[in-house]
Amino acid sequence: MTRMKCISTAGLAGLAVAVTLAPALAQDAASAVPADSAYVFNSFSFLVTGFLVMWMAAGFTMLEAGMVRSKNVAMQCTKNIALYSIAGLMFWVVGYNLMYDGVDGGYLGSFTPKVIPDPESDPGDYAAASDWFFQMVFCATAASIVSGTLAERIKLWPFLIFTAILCGVIYPIQGAWQWGGGWLSEAGFSDFAGSTIVHSTGGWAALTGAIILGSRAGKYGLGGSIHPMPGSSMPLATLGTFILWLGWFGFNGGSQLALGSVVDASSISRIFVNTNIAAAAGVVAALLLTQIVYGKVDLTMALNGALAGLVSITAEPLAPTPMWAIVIGAIGGVIVVFAVPLLDRLRIDDVVGAIPVHLLAGIWGTFAVPLTNDGTSFGTQILGIVSIGVFVSVVSGIVWLLMKATIGIRVSAEEEADGLDRSELGMEAYPEFGQGTQRV
Amino acid sequence: MTRMKCISTAGLAGLAVAVTLAPALAQDAASAVPADSAYVFNSFSFLVTGFLVMWMAAGFTMLEAGMVRSKNVAMQCTKNIALYSIAGLMFWVVGYNLMYDGVDGGYLGSFTPKVIPDPESDPGDYAAASDWFFQMVFCATAASIVSGTLAERIKLWPFLIFTAILCGVIYPIQGAWQWGGGWLSEAGFSDFAGSTIVHSTGGWAALTGAIILGSRAGKYGLGGSIHPMPGSSMPLATLGTFILWLGWFGFNGGSQLALGSVVDASSISRIFVNTNIAAAAGVVAALLLTQIVYGKVDLTMALNGALAGLVSITAEPLAPTPMWAIVIGAIGGVIVVFAVPLLDRLRIDDVVGAIPVHLLAGIWGTFAVPLTNDGTSFGTQILGIVSIGVFVSVVSGIVWLLMKATIGIRVSAEEEADGLDRSELGMEAYPEFGQGTQRV
Amino acid sequence: MTRMKCISTAGLAGLAVAVTLAPALAQDAASAVPADSAYVFNSFSFLVTGFLVMWMAAGFTMLEAGMVRSKNVAMQCTKNIALYSIAGLMFWVVGYNLMYDGVDGGYLGSFTPKVIPDPESDPGDYAAASDWFFQMVFCATAASIVSGTLAERIKLWPFLIFTAILCGVIYPIQGAWQWGGGWLSEAGFSDFAGSTIVHSTGGWAALTGAIILGSRAGKYGLGGSIHPMPGSSMPLATLGTFILWLGWFGFNGGSQLALGSVVDASSISRIFVNTNIAAAAGVVAALLLTQIVYGKVDLTMALNGALAGLVSITAEPLAPTPMWAIVIGAIGGVIVVFAVPLLDRLRIDDVVGAIPVHLLAGIWGTFAVPLTNDGTSFGTQILGIVSIGVFVSVVSGIVWLLMKATIGIRVSAEEEADGLDRSELGMEAYPEFGQGTQRV
Repeated sequence: MTRMKCISTAGLAGLAVAVTLAPALAQDAASAVPADSAYVFNSFSFLVTGFLVMWMAAGFTMLEAGMVRSKNVAMQCTKNIALYSIAGLMFWVVGYNLMYDGVDGGYLGSFTPKVIPDPESDPGDYAAASDWFFQMVFCATAASIVSGTLAERIKLWPFLIFTAILCGVIYPIQGAWQWGGGWLSEAGFSDFAGSTIVHSTGGWAALTGAIILGSRAGKYGLGGSIHPMPGSSMPLATLGTFILWLGWFGFNGGSQLALGSVVDASSISRIFVNTNIAAAAGVVAALLLTQIVYGKVDLTMALNGALAGLVSITAEPLAPTPMWAIVIGAIGGVIVVFAVPLLDRLRIDDVVGAIPVHLLAGIWGTFAVPLTNDGTSFGTQILGIVSIGVFVSVVSGIVWLLMKATIGIRVSAEEEADGLDRSELGMEAYPEFGQGTQRV
Repeated sequence: MTRMKCISTAGLAGLAVAVTLAPALAQDAASAVPADSAYVFNSFSFLVTGFLVMWMAAGFTMLEAGMVRSKNVAMQCTKNIALYSIAGLMFWVVGYNLMYDGVDGGYLGSFTPKVIPDPESDPGDYAAASDWFFQMVFCATAASIVSGTLAERIKLWPFLIFTAILCGVIYPIQGAWQWGGGWLSEAGFSDFAGSTIVHSTGGWAALTGAIILGSRAGKYGLGGSIHPMPGSSMPLATLGTFILWLGWFGFNGGSQLALGSVVDASSISRIFVNTNIAAAAGVVAALLLTQIVYGKVDLTMALNGALAGLVSITAEPLAPTPMWAIVIGAIGGVIVVFAVPLLDRLRIDDVVGAIPVHLLAGIWGTFAVPLTNDGTSFGTQILGIVSIGVFVSVVSGIVWLLMKATIGIRVSAEEEADGLDRSELGMEAYPEFGQGTQRV
Repeated sequence: MTRMKCISTAGLAGLAVAVTLAPALAQDAASAVPADSAYVFNSFSFLVTGFLVMWMAAGFTMLEAGMVRSKNVAMQCTKNIALYSIAGLMFWVVGYNLMYDGVDGGYLGSFTPKVIPDPESDPGDYAAASDWFFQMVFCATAASIVSGTLAERIKLWPFLIFTAILCGVIYPIQGAWQWGGGWLSEAGFSDFAGSTIVHSTGGWAALTGAIILGSRAGKYGLGGSIHPMPGSSMPLATLGTFILWLGWFGFNGGSQLALGSVVDASSISRIFVNTNIAAAAGVVAALLLTQIVYGKVDLTMALNGALAGLVSITAEPLAPTPMWAIVIGAIGGVIVVFAVPLLDRLRIDDVVGAIPVHLLAGIWGTFAVPLTNDGTSFGTQILGIVSIGVFVSVVSGIVWLLMKATIGIRVSAEEEADGLDRSELGMEAYPEFGQGTQRV
């Protein structure tokens, strides 16, 4: 089913009240949530689930701050608070209307800022501002994915320019195809909360960036050797994962786009259960697999297993039974355990594992939708995966290459060795610890 | 009053609408929350308060990561994300129905997975999935308590096996006695949000584990000497405490089990106030007492004072006036200040102070219910405390002893000295700091 | 418009239902949110937005723990959990009623504890306890502001005594003038969510404290030299900022004081948008300005830019269009970039930058209200800014000077050099890292 901003089951419930005249149905109609109450429920749901997704920006920040070396931690924090801010501005200036304003089966909406109506004249089944807020934090999530992969060697300002283009143009256009009611939604593609539209989009942008930017100095040696560069703080990475897990209840639950009816409330509840159980299965799969394959459990794999389980269930968190959610999430966890070393063998340097988690598990989750949702087909799912993948990769690639050829996207070798905190920011993340203590 | 999953005041409110015919009551009935709106309120309340309790898993993780030494931090993070995952799976596979399905005055429900109905046919006063989610995070909380006490020397997999048994069998069975409508609820026991059912249960499991596992190497010397082993990060421990405090509003507030009526909304609000004020009193009591007794304020006592205040008010957060909430919470704080050194004198090694906080303050809070709730008696409260204590201790003890005799539950002395991060996980939590820098 | 606790648009909506008799309006009245449903919405809104503001206490703690040196981190954590606790107690004992009970155009309410009614007899348009909870966390926020500025040299207990006076007397009295319906509200002053009443109040108390307490040893040298004292953990400071940003949705959104009507739901949604966009503009302004002025981006300026944007929009988050919100927030970010070094030139030592963020941006935001809200005037805005500023500064100054003359407010030079963690608490925040490792 299409997920357009102006069609919600709350609206259908309101319709039911108006249409129902037969005595047999009178009681049901009488017990339906009144229209104004439904408006409040729907709007408040956008706000609550939206603030949970906003909180994911902090989750990405902590995850990435924990996974980079201490000499790049302050820069990673800078990039993350900056990207969330830029996403919020760009999605108002141009992104929202490009994604949602009059797409009507086509390829994009209008290049105009979003108008936020006065509360006294705010039409529809929910507050327009609540919907904008909810959609904005999704856009910010896509941008967050890129920052982790490219950490420790990309320059600050080129990264932020890319973020502005991603949030203002790339993300909204491919989003318009589906959630804006464009051609892909008419073709029958299904991506409930954004395994492809948010996570794979961020993942493709990250992958093209990683290839064009190149790996960190010293990461890959002669003869295929790989040098581990362990992250500076496992508790912060774990905290970030828990924040993301919490935020995902908003991400998937809020994507029901309505709360103001019994069916909506029950659907969101079911989404919460499937979201949690898929993440749990991703963790357990990663724990068991690393124990079996490597003889030791790996915490970063467990964390990424949780995230991969979450990404996997995001394309269809409503239809599966809990048993199916376990299967879908566990396969996400398995993907991560095998894909992280595979990327290293391909010498694609992904600092936090965002490509396995968001791109590959996103593809898996999108592909798996027809397993539990009868209204979809593998053919249209692949159509959506490929078309969005090609669009995002090509446009992202052009932007990265243009910037590489002009302003440059990579810090110098000396700056990289010194750490971006000192070279680009002129500060230390931990001036009294670790790298910091060696110089103070 | 019993807290069964299928009896909520929302249901009673709905009944009132149906029954009320007398003109004098017509206006009240007309203004009552419509049934479908109540369904949405009740379900959304479970989801919101449930995600707050889910967030407590991150709180325990940060608290414990901050209270263990740096060489065991990554392992503590691993155990926590694993236990939350395992709890979520086991409570679906067997826990929920064992606790709630047809207990009917008896000792346990059925050994079957929980069926999550389709949103289109989800009966009752709330979404079944929202209730499952809410109950599941409670089960996870009980498991979180154990991990802190046994930190720094228990092996990963035996701990996780215990977690699976605790969440799948031990917690649900004793929960069935009361919240499932079993024999203890029929006897008149009262435990509103789980001072005994969640916190003491976790505490008894932790205590038996601590005794059977033994203390950390070097903790207790000859002649009764005690060697302090300060935690690696006080800000993370403080963050964890704030997360738990925040989550507790969901823990206690959501235990009203309904939001969809004026009385429910007012009750939850009152519970928020009492929960906050009891925690505040626990902090202030611990601050004053440590200043008086030791001449210096102790941060870890203040943090545990907050938690003890929270545990203390959990058995009855609705009936007390704020003045009573202050008394109940402050006594919780006092218990912690005296019980932490007492446990050390008994040479029971509880790394984070979970036994004073969750077991002892849980007993106190449960015992104190008749002080403010007229419908209860000290006799039945003691019956509940003792019966659940004996059951959980005996079964937990058997499980610990069985594992000790077979697969072993404790790492080797060398592994313990080296730290579990390096020996069991093969990684460092802070590879550039502290213990890490000495080896890299 | 006055923001009194007993006048809400929900109440007006209820009134509309009762008054409306004309057939033309019958349909609107029929679709209005029923009174009991509105009661639940309003109460639940206070609880949800209130727990977000409560969470800000953790945000201040992390921000400050990250901005002080490692030898003072545990003390900063201690002060923050203690101040939140004391605020919660004092606002019940005397603060709430002093601020809200029978002010009636005057200067203060009554010196009595707040009575929390039984849920069965809880009158009004929302649960009384939910309102108390929401107002309490605002009071705690004002106290949090002070702790950051005075960090690293103020004694624990004098700080806590000041906190008790601030929360019990100073904050409630000036709050009574406006939100309690006192003389300032009658004069036409407008401060929607507290740029002046919460943030500048905390800022004035911090400024007088900083002047009377003096700067940290070694901060300012001869000839106007300024010695940077970088904070110990940038990721914790960033986490704190994200927590505060999240909490601010509750701070501003909840200040609508009602959710139970279409207009309320739409208003809160608009407030979320403006709050987010003003913060984003503050970040981007600080990033650009530090790049231009200093040639390097400064993370702490970006973080404080976010907070300054948030404080700036707090006085009027509803009326502005997004474009105006960008302007108002960006100017907040600019203020911070220029005011932080200015304070240093004045040798006023503000450890975390709370005076620029909360006091100066608070003044700016309050002054700017008439730019977008036609019902206000610059004259009455200045009246409010000045009258509250004078009151808080004079009373705070008297309290600080009295304590300085009696019990003393500053630790000794040796204690300061040693760090408050070791000297006042007898512990280390990071016993294995940084300062800690040098001594263990």
